[in-house]
Formats: sequence, C-alpha cells, structure tokens
Amino acid sequence: MSTKIKDLELEASELTRTTHQLGIPVMILFEGVPAAGKTRLSNELLLTLDAKYSSFIATASPTPENLRYQFLQKYWNTLPGKGDINIYFRSWYAHYIDYKVNGIKHLQYKDYHVLRDQIDGFETMLENDQYEIIKFYIEIDEQKRQEHIRQTKENPLTRWKAQEYENVIPDDIYLEEMREILQDPTQKDWKIIDYTDGEAATILMYEHIIKRLKKAIKAYHERVQTRDGLFTEGYTTDVFDNPLEKVSKSEYKTQIEKLQARMLEIQFALYERKIPLILVFEGMDAAGKGGNIKRIREKLDPTGYEVNAISAPTDVELAHQYLWRFARDMPRTGHIELFDRSWYGRVLVERVEGFATTDEWQRAYHEINDFEKMWTDEGAILLKFFLSLDKDVQLERFKAREENPDKQWKITDEDWRNREKWDLYLEASADMIQKTDTHNAPWYVVPADHKKTARIAVLKRIIKTCETALWGVHHD
Amino acid sequence: MSTKIKDLELEASELTRTTHQLGIPVMILFEGVPAAGKTRLSNELLLTLDAKYSSFIATASPTPENLRYQFLQKYWNTLPGKGDINIYFRSWYAHYIDYKVNGIKHLQYKDYHVLRDQIDGFETMLENDQYEIIKFYIEIDEQKRQEHIRQTKENPLTRWKAQEYENVIPDDIYLEEMREILQDPTQKDWKIIDYTDGEAATILMYEHIIKRLKKAIKAYHERVQTRDGLFTEGYTTDVFDNPLEKVSKSEYKTQIEKLQARMLEIQFALYERKIPLILVFEGMDAAGKGGNIKRIREKLDPTGYEVNAISAPTDVELAHQYLWRFARDMPRTGHIELFDRSWYGRVLVERVEGFATTDEWQRAYHEINDFEKMWTDEGAILLKFFLSLDKDVQLERFKAREENPDKQWKITDEDWRNREKWDLYLEASADMIQKTDTHNAPWYVVPADHKKTARIAVLKRIIKTCETALWGVHHD
Repeated sequence: MSTKIKDLELEASELTRTTHQLGIPVMILFEGVPAAGKTRLSNELLLTLDAKYSSFIATASPTPENLRYQFLQKYWNTLPGKGDINIYFRSWYAHYIDYKVNGIKHLQYKDYHVLRDQIDGFETMLENDQYEIIKFYIEIDEQKRQEHIRQTKENPLTRWKAQEYENVIPDDIYLEEMREILQDPTQKDWKIIDYTDGEAATILMYEHIIKRLKKAIKAYHERVQTRDGLFTEGYTTDVFDNPLEKVSKSEYKTQIEKLQARMLEIQFALYERKIPLILVFEGMDAAGKGGNIKRIREKLDPTGYEVNAISAPTDVELAHQYLWRFARDMPRTGHIELFDRSWYGRVLVERVEGFATTDEWQRAYHEINDFEKMWTDEGAILLKFFLSLDKDVQLERFKAREENPDKQWKITDEDWRNREKWDLYLEASADMIQKTDTHNAPWYVVPADHKKTARIAVLKRIIKTCETALWGVHHD
Repeated sequence: MSTKIKDLELEASELTRTTHQLGIPVMILFEGVPAAGKTRLSNELLLTLDAKYSSFIATASPTPENLRYQFLQKYWNTLPGKGDINIYFRSWYAHYIDYKVNGIKHLQYKDYHVLRDQIDGFETMLENDQYEIIKFYIEIDEQKRQEHIRQTKENPLTRWKAQEYENVIPDDIYLEEMREILQDPTQKDWKIIDYTDGEAATILMYEHIIKRLKKAIKAYHERVQTRDGLFTEGYTTDVFDNPLEKVSKSEYKTQIEKLQARMLEIQFALYERKIPLILVFEGMDAAGKGGNIKRIREKLDPTGYEVNAISAPTDVELAHQYLWRFARDMPRTGHIELFDRSWYGRVLVERVEGFATTDEWQRAYHEINDFEKMWTDEGAILLKFFLSLDKDVQLERFKAREENPDKQWKITDEDWRNREKWDLYLEASADMIQKTDTHNAPWYVVPADHKKTARIAVLKRIIKTCETALWGVHHD
C-alpha cells in the first residue's frame, strides 16, 4: 500500500476519534452498480475505523416482514448515536430504486417522488442535528467490471455470489435512476469516484472524508446554542375553547359499550386491510390521557395494539436524534400504536424546560410534520388528541389523587412543578397545535374537564376517521 | 365487575409498583388452546398494569427471517429490563411445540429435547438473576370454547380471525405436547386455570400473581450480596504455557495472504451453507485482539461479518440480564460475528473489580456454557481465543504506544490500572478457560508475545475448524 494512503488512513482515523469524542454522528454512503468497487472501498474504510463505534449496514431487498414497516424503518432502527459512524453499503437510494422498480405491491404510491421527499426530510432533519452525511457514488471501467464478475463466477466457492450481480435491480435501470438522482439540483452532496484505478480511488475517498470531517468538526465548534423558549408575556389563546355537551352517566354507559364493541370490529378490519393506526395523546397532567387510552384499548385484542407511555429518555435515547426512539416503536401494518405523550415533548417540555435549544424546538415543527408524513404516506391513519383541562379542575384532581391512597403514586412533585409553568405549557401547546395540525395528521382539541364526555368524544372521532378510511363512509 | 376483582387489581397494581421500584423484572406467560380465555385474562391483566413498564409479547409462527436466528432470539431481544413486566401471549413453550410439530426445515435436531434444555437453561439463568417467571395454563369447557369460536366466525368482521383457531399447531397436538410439559417433574411452576367461569378464573389469576410477587419482593430483600473474587495468594498456573515456533517475516507474508484468501472462500461457503460463525477474543490489554481480528476480516466481504468491540455497558444494558446485549448481536445464518471481548467480562473484569457478586460470577460459568450451546445446538461454529501475553512484553507494548503519536490514544490510565491487577486477571482467566472449555465451544490459548505468530496460528485454527465442519476434512 502506498505511503500516501497510509498517511490518509492515519489522518482519517485521528479525525474520527475527534468526531467520536465530540459526539458527532457520521453516515457514509456507498452507491454504485455491483462489482464497481464499493466492497473494496468500504472495506478499506471499515478497517481504518475503530470497531467500537463503527458499523457496517448493508441494504438488501426487503423481506415480506420488512415491508410491514415504513420505507425508512431500517435506517431509523440503525441510526448512529452521537459519535458513532455508519457505513452504508447501498443506502436508502438503492432502497428507493428497489421500491420503485419492483413496485412493492402493498404500497399504493401514485408517485414515487413521495419516497424521495421522505429521503430529503430524513437527511435534512439529521443534518440539522449535526449528523454528517457523506455520499459516494462509485463508477468503474465497464471492461474491468465484467472481468471481476467473470472471476467471481469461475471460482466454484464464489459462483453463487455472482447471482448478486444479476440483482433485484437490473444494472441499466439502477444506472438510469442513479443518474437522475445525481443530476437532481437538490442533491449537491455526492462525490463521484472512478474505481478503475483502485489506489487513486482510495486516495480520493479519504481526501473527501477528511475534508468533510474537518468541516463537521469546525461547524461543531462554531455552533451557537441558545436556549430560550421565547414565551409571550400575558399570552392568551382561544385554541382550547371548544365546549362539548356533557354526557350523562347513563348515556355514557350505553354509549361506551357500543363504541368499544365497534372499536374492536375496527381493529379487526384494520388488521385485515393492513392499515396501521397511530394515536397520539398530549395534554396537561391529570387531563385523563391514560384513562382515555384505557377506554380505547379495553376491549381490543391485545395481540394487535401497543401502548407507549413515554418517560424521560434513557442515555442511549439521548445519544440519538430525538425522533429515533419513537420511529422504532411505530406500528407495522394492521397494528395500533397508542402514544401516551409522544415526540411532541420536543416542543412542549423540552421547550419549556430549555432541554432543547431555540433552534431545535423551532425547526421541530417542520421535522415532525415530515416525520408523520412518512407513515401517512404509506397509508397509516394518524390522529392526535390534545386533552385540554381547566387549571382549577387540575387542582381538584391533584388534590383528589393525594387524598386517595390507591392514587397517591400518580401525583409527584414534578406534577406540581409543571403546574407552576401552566402558562408556558399553554403557549407551547397552542403553538404546537397551530404548526402541526396537518391534513394527513390532524389535531383534535378535546375539552377534558368532564372525563366521560372526553372519552366518548375521542372514541367517536377515532371510529369516524377509521370508518371513512375503511369504507369511505361513516355509519352513524 | 365484582368488588373482589377490583380489590385484587388494586393489590396487584400496588405490588407491581413495588417490583418496578425495586428493579425486579417479571415475566407472565399465558398458554392454552385458542379461544380458551387467554386473550381475556391477559388483557384484563394488561389493563391493570402501568403501560410505562409493561409490554405485551405475542408469539406467532416464525417467519423465514426469524428462522435465520437462534430459537430463543425473539425472547432474548424482548427480555424485560429491571422493573419491567412482560406478558407473553403464548410463550417459548408454544414456540417449541411449533418448531417440533412443523419440523422447521433448516434445523436438524435429532431430538427436540435440546430445545427444552435451552428453555430450562434460559429460565434458570433468568430466575437466578431475580427475574420472576409466572406461568399460566388456561383451560376451558370444550362446549364453551366451540361456542366462542362459532360467534367469531359468524361476525363478518372477525371471521378471518377464526382462521387463527385453525392454527399452525392443531389443537390436539398442542394439547398433547402441553400435557407432556405440564407433567414434566422439572416443570413445577405452572398454574392451571379453568376459564369456564371467567370471574373465578380472573380471581385465581390475580391471587396467584399476588402470591408470586410477594414472594419475589421477599426474596429481593432477603438476598445476600457478597462481592468477593475469591483469589488465591501466590497463584500459579500452566494453562498459558503453550509455546509456538516463531514465524519469520517472509513466512508470514506468504502465509497470511494464502490464509486470508482461504478465509474469504470459507466465508462464502459458510454463507451458502447457512452456518453462522462466532469468534470470541479475550486476552490481556495489548495482547493483539484488535490486530488479530483485523487480519481475519481484512479480505472478507463486509456485508457478511460484524465486529463487536465491547465497551462498558450502557444504562439500558445494565438494566438487563448480562447476556442480553450479546444475545442481540449474535449472527444470523451464514454470517460471521467477531467479538473483541465478550460475555466473558462477567468472570473477568466483573469478578476482578467486584461488579458482579460472588454468586453471580460463580454461576456464570454454567450460564455461559448453556448460552453458547444455544447457538452451537443449531449448527453455529463457536471458537474462543485467549491471547496470552508475557507481563514484560505488555510493558514494552504499553511504552511503545505511549511513544508513538499515532497510537497514544490506544493507551489509557485504565490499562495501567488493569496491569496492577495482573495476577488477579491471570487467575480469573485460567478459571474461565478451565470451566468453559467445552466440546461445542472450545478455548484456544494462543501465545501472543510474537504478534505475527499468533495471527497465523489463529487463522489456521479457524480455517481448520471451518473446513472440517464444511467438508468433513481439513485440506492442509
């Protein structure tokens, strides 16, 4: 190996120790037709990096099980944590081409561009979070490539591997699609490397990585981290003024049983039609999120739903982009996922408490809209409920909890501290609803001062939306 | 609902808050033929528990992707952490019956009892680690059951669900197998509940859970935690006396290239034959573990292997049984996994530093043997290398690292601290090798004072073992 390459290896290796220490996550993508030199380049790089914090992620054609999840699920699941480095051997770009070319059956995209939009959204939110994404496209002299394929086929031990070259994506289609991607003006970040001369290619790869890592380290040191929730003095809003007629005790009893039985039928219908349902619950402490969720799930088949009650993040979760832990829990086809608090913590508690920087929570609205769209693009139903509580009613409920020995555990000092910041939460909640109430993932503000009324309203809303999605009409 | 049940719910709920606070993990299994009442009982229980720390795990028939992993992989992956509660709707018992009855093709068990042994080993190691495993077997009057199935079939929305009742496991076979399991004298822990009277069944379920949780809490408070590595004054051993003839520089160059090329062929052959290869490296600091791993992987196809360089556990890892984090990284069929340090940390660093109690590291030998056998039972090749270094050679290498600016990062204060405990590590290593050198997962002590000699010896050993496994003979 040339001294030049050895020196570059050392420099790259040194820089990755710095990105590791600073907590900068790095994603390095290798695209190119089979036998172009991707394996050799990515392996060369992999051997230079410290195995403690580097991973090799190969993209294969999705299995039927994979297809039960969102298009980018695999990449969410394997997202590098702070300071980690992922090398992608074929990436979400090959994955996109695979979906497009092989017309994965259960998805009904009118336009495969939604997947490209998802990729854009995914990369942008990661880059905004200091993820360094480095993209290589590897080319090679066609004669050399055919020679390499011939050699692989001639060795009886590697012959089967040559099948990979008669890939799920025909070379000419892959080339055409990649050419289109590389020419896309929004895709300015690709580094094209010709592997016809392997040593020159290796040098180019390292030089580019070194340049990008230096840039990332510089950006890390230059970034300004302001923490300001930007709250308004004397803030008022009418977002939560949404009175509902009180349901009587007897009405409740009749209605809740009917609605729960209907909810079970809907669960079965969603399962049969392979539609995922995502239900998000936010609201003040003691607004009744858990109680609402309990009424929804009470008669459901527990093999087909999950409840995610969100607590403070673990250190592993904190070391990833904030949406990572939620993406991993999103439902597969036909399943129901209920979130008792959610990714909206970014613009609620993280804004109020200053856990997120001003820039972070401000861009989160847009990121969350992109994130939710990834699931609804693929047919998921996503409904968001904000249970709105009167401040005095909260106090009554807190006191009642303190007095009931079976419920004392439900009330903590943190609840009282949050109550002191009532106005801040109110403004944060109103901003959230205003900025993330989208057509594909709408918010419903439900007055929650009367528990039974809120439960009936929420169940009715879910059932109505699902009926419309399932059968085009709502049977009242 | 009866007051009796309400009271039991409250009591169970209160007890689970205690197990949560104490960090006791709880696993509750429900077995029984379809439509026996498992769904209703498990759902009743699920609604009583706090969603923050309880999960519902349903066992379905394995997909082709699942079959690429170890029999118990799903249960390792979803293992509850400290203080968490898992409810299993059908468990590893139904899973075992499924494997046995449907004779999953790629496994060549002569005797399905190895899977039962795996289950025994799995449960035992968890119970030793304070996991509380509660097993319910649900029965019901056959007429009632048929009535329930008929109702499900009559409703057009739930009709498809009735297919589940014509399950992958025919009822009579399931019953016969479960009867055999329940009568097994080593299976003393099952609670059989008749669901013919649903309310009585619910009461029995809660009473049993309450009894078991109280027992678990009592055991938690009574346990004695001694931390003592039990080291011997003036310990000596000849375990590491295993001289090798030094390989010359020119011999090394010729041999290493040949061996690496052969290793690549073996990788392809393993992949084609779907045999997983697990390589474990232990040894003193600076013994050359990373260097050995680098030489093995250098020419391999990076899409088919992974390196696991083990660091200190994260808080999530610490909150699980110690083998959990390794089980999740075990290879699927045809893949190679290289461990730079491993689960043997339990009997090395954790013994030396007192991180594990005396009881914990002492029973770990047996647990690790059981653990490794789970993979080798299914055809994995598992080789363990201990790189043995002379104490003076370590000192030379430490100093050389300190003097080389490109290698300074490799040497830390911790390395120097470990060096002071040389004799303790020596005894712990010798005990480990003596107690975990099994036929199915042997240890190889490789003298590592001369780096090149060690690398050649390790590669030759791997190749020889794989050749024998693949073709029955070793071509020298």
